[in-house]
Amino acid sequence: MARVVVDVMLKPEILDPQGQAVQRALPRLGFDGISDVRQGKRFELEVDGPVDEAALARIHDLAESFLANTVIEDFTIRVEEVAEAAK
Amino acid sequence: MARVVVDVMLKPEILDPQGQAVQRALPRLGFDGISDVRQGKRFELEVDGPVDEAALARIHDLAESFLANTVIEDFTIRVEEVAEAAK
Repeated sequence: MARVVVDVMLKPEILDPQGQAVQRALPRLGFDGISDVRQGKRFELEVDGPVDEAALARIHDLAESFLANTVIEDFTIRVEEVAEAAK
Repeated sequence: MARVVVDVMLKPEILDPQGQAVQRALPRLGFDGISDVRQGKRFELEVDGPVDEAALARIHDLAESFLANTVIEDFTIRVEEVAEAAK
C-alpha cells in the first residue's frame, strides 16, 4: 500500500483569481514579502499493491483524463511510500 | 526568491466527500486498485528574499490563521527553491 500524490495547478499563463485574492489579503493581515500566490488542488490516492511502472502509467491516465483539466491545468505525480510496511 | 508550498488537507478523521466522490467514480471510469482518495488544497507562495527561520515562522502563522482551518484541517509547509538564481 502506497500513497501517490497528484498535484494539480493552473498553468502559469492562466489567471488564478483564488490565488490573487489570497495574495491581496496578506498585507492587510500583516504578512508582507509574498509576491505571488497560486492555489491548486492536491489529491492523495491510496494505491493497493505495488506502485510500479504500470500503476504509475494508469495514474497518469487518470490524472490526465479526470483529475486535471489539461487545457488549463498542469499536474505532477509523485509517490509517497506510506510507512506502514509492518501492518 | 523562493517558492514555499503549503499543503492543506482535511484531518484523517474528517469525512472528505469530494475525495469520496472521486474514489467512487474511478471504477466506473476503468481505474481499479485505488482504495481511498483525499482531496485538499495546495498553495504556492513566492517569497521575496531569503526563506530563513523567521520567514518560515511567518508562513507558519499565515497558514495556521488564514490558509487552513486548523479545527478540521492539517497543513504542511515545505520550501521548493526556484531555480532562477541566474535571473
